[in-house]
Amino acid sequence: MSQRPLILVTNDDGITAPGIRTLISVMNTIGDVVVVAPDSPQSAMGHAITINSTLHIEKVTIDGKQSEYSCSGTPADCVKIAVNEILGRRPDICVSGINHGSNSSINVIYSGTMSAALEAGIEGIPAIGFSLLDYNWNANFEHCKSFIETITRQVLENGLPEGVVLNVNLPNLEKEAIKGIKVCRQAKANWKEEFDKRTNPMGREYYWLTGKFVNMDKGEDTDEWALEHGYVSVVPVHFDLTAHHTIQKLNTWNLND
Amino acid sequence: MSQRPLILVTNDDGITAPGIRTLISVMNTIGDVVVVAPDSPQSAMGHAITINSTLHIEKVTIDGKQSEYSCSGTPADCVKIAVNEILGRRPDICVSGINHGSNSSINVIYSGTMSAALEAGIEGIPAIGFSLLDYNWNANFEHCKSFIETITRQVLENGLPEGVVLNVNLPNLEKEAIKGIKVCRQAKANWKEEFDKRTNPMGREYYWLTGKFVNMDKGEDTDEWALEHGYVSVVPVHFDLTAHHTIQKLNTWNLND
Repeated sequence: MSQRPLILVTNDDGITAPGIRTLISVMNTIGDVVVVAPDSPQSAMGHAITINSTLHIEKVTIDGKQSEYSCSGTPADCVKIAVNEILGRRPDICVSGINHGSNSSINVIYSGTMSAALEAGIEGIPAIGFSLLDYNWNANFEHCKSFIETITRQVLENGLPEGVVLNVNLPNLEKEAIKGIKVCRQAKANWKEEFDKRTNPMGREYYWLTGKFVNMDKGEDTDEWALEHGYVSVVPVHFDLTAHHTIQKLNTWNLND
Repeated sequence: MSQRPLILVTNDDGITAPGIRTLISVMNTIGDVVVVAPDSPQSAMGHAITINSTLHIEKVTIDGKQSEYSCSGTPADCVKIAVNEILGRRPDICVSGINHGSNSSINVIYSGTMSAALEAGIEGIPAIGFSLLDYNWNANFEHCKSFIETITRQVLENGLPEGVVLNVNLPNLEKEAIKGIKVCRQAKANWKEEFDKRTNPMGREYYWLTGKFVNMDKGEDTDEWALEHGYVSVVPVHFDLTAHHTIQKLNTWNLND
């Protein structure tokens, strides 16, 4: 790439979150950065889009020289409006994050961070979602920087296979303790929900959704294994959800008798 | 199955939508029905879950003898709270819909209807999302009934492959014009967004998200092909998003030099 690449940065924790500020600082060393991110936290929004209300964007200045816009919509909305109304040309890459908290294994499904990356992927833009395994607002993101730079430069250099985006998770360890970057598959894991039932001052019952993460997958090629063993995990994720290997089986059913 | 199956019914258009009322009437002919559905429309919510606010459920009576609960959360929340707090035992099947509007091809990603089905699938419950290709609130769902019954009975009889749920879309045609049920793959298609930019009475600019659906896939084994040619489409959908076929390629990159 002779010119500096045009990089779209977004997230789901909101435009002022420390995670996206770190991601922006890394991207400024690689290319020309435009930020379009939610004006408020949008965690666990999945792949929501805004079709029943209006969207607002506002040019903002927070730090550095990059152009920044806050958007009233979801992470997927941010990508759509950036590409169609703000950037003027197709970005060379879209990066989302750094999420405050894991998006490994089944969490990819619930993740606003990854929905932004998937939305970019659907539009044919190479895209990566980055997440750190630390939910704290004041998490230390410093050790993420060199890994994020390496992975982003490799994507710019090699391109991504068609219809694929990357889901990158970083362990919450000192930089020296991280063993390297590992390409993985999504572990088979889920959440065992527990609802915390309470009564409000007016006597009405309500619930908080909580839960425990359970990894059922003993494979050593999964993202969970990699993260537990001190690696940065990279899972190639696609948005053709067809379970192709089951079509033959379903065609043995009596659907048209 | 000797006993009548326990059937969990949900949707994303809200508990009073004509689509879910039709689905409930079909399920009453098959088993014992419990409805847990959003108290208001949740379309295009993707796989959102409610973690930053409280959830309320309310026992309601609308029609028929089935137990019904309206829930303040998203479709995925409805499934979680139904399984953990309401049903008392694991349901034999979860059906979601009938959605007012298509969830074929890439729409599966944005769909609240399908997120409920996927959530049930993640919890190991056989699940189906049903959608009719008609966005009208007063759409005619009568012709859907026999197809929905056939597919549901086949799932109860055969079970579903592990980690797979069904995405069923029904064409908006007279029953006699429908040629049958076809197992398909998700077509490669997307939305070309168009933002409708307006100015509010206070002079502030805002946007409405609109767009045009574009099917780039000429295959005759896709859901789009089936629907255009008068078939009910059935796509097996999974939630392992790993693009397994690309792992080998990514392992040739310089990630750890």
